[in-house]
Amino acid sequence: MRNFSFFGRFSRAFQDYPSLSKIIVVSTISGGGLIAYTEANSYNGGRGHIAHADAVASEVVPKKKKVVLLGIGWAGMSFLKNLNNPNYEVQVVSPRNFFVFTPLLPSVTCGKVEARSIVEPVRNIICKKSVDISYSEAECIKIDPENKKIYCRDVINTNVKGEDVFAVDYDYLIVAVGAQVNTFNTPGVYENCHFLKEVDDAQKIRKNVIQSFEKASLPNLTDEERKKILHFVVVGGGPTGVEFAAELHDFVSEDVVKLYPKVKDYVKITLLEATDHILNMFDKRITSFAEGKFGRDGIDVKLGSMVTGISDKEISTKVKGDSNSTSTPYGMVLWSTGIGPRPLIKEFMKQIGQGNRRALATDEWLRVEGFNNIYALGDCATINQRKVMEDIADIFKKADKDKSGTLTVKEFQEILNDVCERYPQVELYMKSKQVRNIADLLKEAKGDSAKESMELNIEEFKKALTEVDTQMKNLPATAQVANQQGAYLAKCFNRMEECERNPEGPPRFRAEGRHRFHPFRYRHLGQFAPLGGEQTAAQLPGDWVSIGHSSQWLWYSVYASKQVSWRTRALVVSDWIRRFIFGRDASGI
Amino acid sequence: MRNFSFFGRFSRAFQDYPSLSKIIVVSTISGGGLIAYTEANSYNGGRGHIAHADAVASEVVPKKKKVVLLGIGWAGMSFLKNLNNPNYEVQVVSPRNFFVFTPLLPSVTCGKVEARSIVEPVRNIICKKSVDISYSEAECIKIDPENKKIYCRDVINTNVKGEDVFAVDYDYLIVAVGAQVNTFNTPGVYENCHFLKEVDDAQKIRKNVIQSFEKASLPNLTDEERKKILHFVVVGGGPTGVEFAAELHDFVSEDVVKLYPKVKDYVKITLLEATDHILNMFDKRITSFAEGKFGRDGIDVKLGSMVTGISDKEISTKVKGDSNSTSTPYGMVLWSTGIGPRPLIKEFMKQIGQGNRRALATDEWLRVEGFNNIYALGDCATINQRKVMEDIADIFKKADKDKSGTLTVKEFQEILNDVCERYPQVELYMKSKQVRNIADLLKEAKGDSAKESMELNIEEFKKALTEVDTQMKNLPATAQVANQQGAYLAKCFNRMEECERNPEGPPRFRAEGRHRFHPFRYRHLGQFAPLGGEQTAAQLPGDWVSIGHSSQWLWYSVYASKQVSWRTRALVVSDWIRRFIFGRDASGI
Repeated sequence: MRNFSFFGRFSRAFQDYPSLSKIIVVSTISGGGLIAYTEANSYNGGRGHIAHADAVASEVVPKKKKVVLLGIGWAGMSFLKNLNNPNYEVQVVSPRNFFVFTPLLPSVTCGKVEARSIVEPVRNIICKKSVDISYSEAECIKIDPENKKIYCRDVINTNVKGEDVFAVDYDYLIVAVGAQVNTFNTPGVYENCHFLKEVDDAQKIRKNVIQSFEKASLPNLTDEERKKILHFVVVGGGPTGVEFAAELHDFVSEDVVKLYPKVKDYVKITLLEATDHILNMFDKRITSFAEGKFGRDGIDVKLGSMVTGISDKEISTKVKGDSNSTSTPYGMVLWSTGIGPRPLIKEFMKQIGQGNRRALATDEWLRVEGFNNIYALGDCATINQRKVMEDIADIFKKADKDKSGTLTVKEFQEILNDVCERYPQVELYMKSKQVRNIADLLKEAKGDSAKESMELNIEEFKKALTEVDTQMKNLPATAQVANQQGAYLAKCFNRMEECERNPEGPPRFRAEGRHRFHPFRYRHLGQFAPLGGEQTAAQLPGDWVSIGHSSQWLWYSVYASKQVSWRTRALVVSDWIRRFIFGRDASGI
Repeated sequence: MRNFSFFGRFSRAFQDYPSLSKIIVVSTISGGGLIAYTEANSYNGGRGHIAHADAVASEVVPKKKKVVLLGIGWAGMSFLKNLNNPNYEVQVVSPRNFFVFTPLLPSVTCGKVEARSIVEPVRNIICKKSVDISYSEAECIKIDPENKKIYCRDVINTNVKGEDVFAVDYDYLIVAVGAQVNTFNTPGVYENCHFLKEVDDAQKIRKNVIQSFEKASLPNLTDEERKKILHFVVVGGGPTGVEFAAELHDFVSEDVVKLYPKVKDYVKITLLEATDHILNMFDKRITSFAEGKFGRDGIDVKLGSMVTGISDKEISTKVKGDSNSTSTPYGMVLWSTGIGPRPLIKEFMKQIGQGNRRALATDEWLRVEGFNNIYALGDCATINQRKVMEDIADIFKKADKDKSGTLTVKEFQEILNDVCERYPQVELYMKSKQVRNIADLLKEAKGDSAKESMELNIEEFKKALTEVDTQMKNLPATAQVANQQGAYLAKCFNRMEECERNPEGPPRFRAEGRHRFHPFRYRHLGQFAPLGGEQTAAQLPGDWVSIGHSSQWLWYSVYASKQVSWRTRALVVSDWIRRFIFGRDASGI
């Protein structure tokens, strides 16, 4: 009887408090879930390092070279995590003392995930490493490559002031400061729009969204004013803009209806896109699915719509091909159209004669052009891939081993791998032409008369490769690229001494010997576009497209596994669980 | 063999990633733990209400009376949670749309608990209730009791403006706006000090603490400047100040040593207390333990130290009995000395002729003196306990049933319970005198000649009770008092109609009939003072004192159980677990 009444009470508790049952279900499976979400080799610290450090300590330690790293975004963090060569003394300089897992920023705007959960303090990373790393919270304001110095400004306001500006010496400088929003000189954007680049942008948006609903719930407004306040405009139909619109729609349909029932009908979400489609970097199937879903959800997608200006009350747009612009009142605007260089990078580009560029140009080894000891990676840099046509004579000379002045297919075949490594566009060109064999490519240039034993002179060789360079593409400004670049550079630094002695890169075509390292090669792992309602579009390598709830689960597991630490992983996963059980937090803090 | 290698890898994973093993241990026990932490009946929503609402709906529903509640602190939240009478239409007005679990504010300052975890949005509470409740995010700026109106100012900044000020009508007004910090007119406090009353105060302190350590780690400072920046001063040795000092010390000794190893030796914590002891509202055993522990921890406790002024760089103090004041440079000051009335309350007190008071005076039923339909509770109010001596003639008359002009012990005994309910100081006085029987008290007044059958005249009766009123004490301004007052008032409102018909309170001494309700009686449940290092001092009813690690566990379980919702309970507990596994977050966001 006692047992019975205990179970009776227990089961009643479940009925009375539905959250309770959810908590128990979730906490029961969470132990296993956390592990399943995680890739086993994501952690770079641990015993390996310590053993390594011990081994080095017993050798004679040469004077450590000073590496200065600017910025701890994806590129900088990835470099720090992968670096394990104790022969360097690393000084990190960044005005922000934490790394942000940027792909989850849109999730922060409406409370699906907490700001703190997607942030990892740089000192947490540093204190686990056996490499000598220190950190200064400051902003680099000038790079002086001649004297191998950078100048930093102290940005922390306390009641005790030190010197305002201080200098830091370097042997190697790694520039990974990222980019800033690009307003395309549209008037009023800085004054009236929200952005979504940093954690505090996301926090401000969240506060603003909640405050808009609170304001609209007040008795001192007309219905017209309520509609204005609850008109949310997103400018830019890229992944960020689309995800924010989807998050906001989910928030309205899942939480606002319960929390702000009186004002839910005044909400309107508008998405403005200047080109013909949203998500235009994705496959067409994804684009049209997304446009269809947003249509059904009541999100007003306006394609071909250019923003001409934003005042504090209205946003002016112009439809493509129409010279008149129309103005619409709004409550909040998110501007997410693209990126431009930061002032430091603009200034540095001017200094080194790259003044007209949109990002710092580097070679394929991520070195800033013209400097052997300055690297640039992530959104602040682009790789200036060397053109085949510029080096065509040298390639011909290197390939023509018998110095006959003509090239046989066999001779070219022998150096083809080296050429493809140094000039990846050759391989892309062959793929795009669906040419399997280099002989076919050369034959085509030679014309119908070509035979197996043909020989090409320099002019014919040029003709064969003349369109190769059209295949060169800039890498997208994504977290994935920056992450891979950081890891690549760390590996180079880890093996610096070894590769000085035994270079492992491709042979130099314009000189003797080989390059120290293999050039950086980007490996595209796929891309997600969350569309709301627990549906995500995924475009994976090999033209594989998946849309729907299953991709959402893929999204959850990939984003959980890609977290930089066990700490943020646990926090992000528990935020998802919390939202599933309790809904979003509407406190506006 | 395969199995073996799986387990081998698994156990290696545990050794390599100590956090992983902690996560698994914690998630395994968390399911049970959460339930154990929680008292079963803490949730007020659920089936009971719905059944009640159904029953009422089938009767004829009278026009709902409008209740306006100002503030959602402990008192307001407790009122809302306990109210379940659907005959009221409640309008909540507060400039802050969430409740804060204030006892955990010191935990937020150094990242033991997240700000969001101790906050419950008022709309989450409202949407679960079956009572008609709405909320406006606005600040009440004026109370107009004659016209039964309050005036509110819209405090939300958006790009669309409505009317600045709007009025709200009420039938009943409940004032629970809390208090603000009291600077005792010390110059420079508002400009240079931190406070710890609100969630954003705690967030600011947290940011400031982290930024101080970042600043001190920069290369552009002298050691002298580093010492200044890392000198943390706490003014006020009450529970808040003491707990903050303890949290800060824990943060330094547990996390700073790892994260900021270069600056850890520059840290200094000073605690200034104007009286002779810290925690002087606690038992002496606790006070001396706390002072001893702080001494061992290296926290500089300065007793009898008055702050005379604070500039942006230095804090000036004066030792008791010494006329000279000394100045010390500081990096950060927390001011936590006491509370004073908010401007709204000051203004209202002037209006109703209570201008000289420090808080709104109410009667024992929490009604503002002179108003039948305005209630005040929590930190903005004090109960003006009616004195026995003021009513002594009426009490005598009521007791003297045979109108003989004298009172027998038996006669007084008959109304003693009613007297004690109306004038609780009588009971306290008897306890303090260790008098068990009222006869003894009366005998004492009568002198040695007293007998069992004695009779007292009015003068002798006065003499017997003359010192009773010295036992009157104001209730402390704590969360516990406010919480009980809110619950009490909700119960009154829940039974309003019933008690109008059948009053349940004590008989009126100065008039006929009975009071509608029992007067409010505070039940002290004990008090905690966390002292850092997982040690807490607990003072429980019945003079029971406990200090140490076991009290810390009591603290954890009490604070987890007292959370206002399952959501915050889960969040707070998971924050504690997170800190245990991963340490504090040093990102400063």
